Amino acid sequence: MTAADKLHYEDFTEGRSFDLGPRTVTAEEIIAFAREFDPQPMHLSEEAGKASILGGLSASGWHTSSLFMRLMIDAYVLKAASEGAPGIEFMQWRKPVLAGDTLTGQSVVEEVRLMRSRPHLGFGHELHNQRGELVLKARNAVMVRRRESAEVPA
Amino acid sequence: MTAADKLHYEDFTEGRSFDLGPRTVTAEEIIAFAREFDPQPMHLSEEAGKASILGGLSASGWHTSSLFMRLMIDAYVLKAASEGAPGIEFMQWRKPVLAGDTLTGQSVVEEVRLMRSRPHLGFGHELHNQRGELVLKARNAVMVRRRESAEVPA
Repeated sequence: MTAADKLHYEDFTEGRSFDLGPRTVTAEEIIAFAREFDPQPMHLSEEAGKASILGGLSASGWHTSSLFMRLMIDAYVLKAASEGAPGIEFMQWRKPVLAGDTLTGQSVVEEVRLMRSRPHLGFGHELHNQRGELVLKARNAVMVRRRESAEVPA
Repeated sequence: MTAADKLHYEDFTEGRSFDLGPRTVTAEEIIAFAREFDPQPMHLSEEAGKASILGGLSASGWHTSSLFMRLMIDAYVLKAASEGAPGIEFMQWRKPVLAGDTLTGQSVVEEVRLMRSRPHLGFGHELHNQRGELVLKARNAVMVRRRESAEVPA
């Protein structure tokens, strides 16, 4: 893929959406992530998960968020002239992601705007599980280069 | 540590702060995380990092966020009667976290409140690098059990 083939700011029109997933989450990867970054009992064993308000071995919210990033990467980020994101406007973990759950979702262009002369795209994101329950809802702004500005200083 | 020894809602008084880190971030772990969750060029090689607006091999924002979770775990989460967090109100990645950077920070209790009958603590968080630059700023609400409610239904 050459630079010209990439998706630029102008290609992300308001309302355009990108499908995410499917991605099944295994007990093994939930536990491996938790050991490194979030070793709370409900992320480390089925037994402790069942004893918690989450109801079973469940992924750390940061694991779900990182998997969500990977789904965006595979759906559109690596195909775009992206310069990254300065953060996340909000991230809600609405339901536990349990071992064996399969996630699918969408990223939707909700807003197109210039911020401090840089082109930003406001994306809304949702992930659902195989039972149709909303598990993750988020919004963020992503910096994507303009096609016509490729050869002039920003 | 018994349940009674744990930090409960009543122990998190407004203004109380918890020190995070230090934690040095290596090139190897930046690349390993990126390969799994965020394989964008600036997170995979020094050369691509230098060519990007980040200025060097830099951690995925999700990696920085996950490391930040680990620092909270080690500072106070495992010592608390925590029931987890429903998400993050905002997360800002203010400066790149470069290979070799050392992170330190603070979590501060900014607000104490009941939400839908559950006790929530509003925490503000910051991480700085060894140059004193703010690299991460975030806010979230955490559910922590009340000491006196341990034996009555919520």
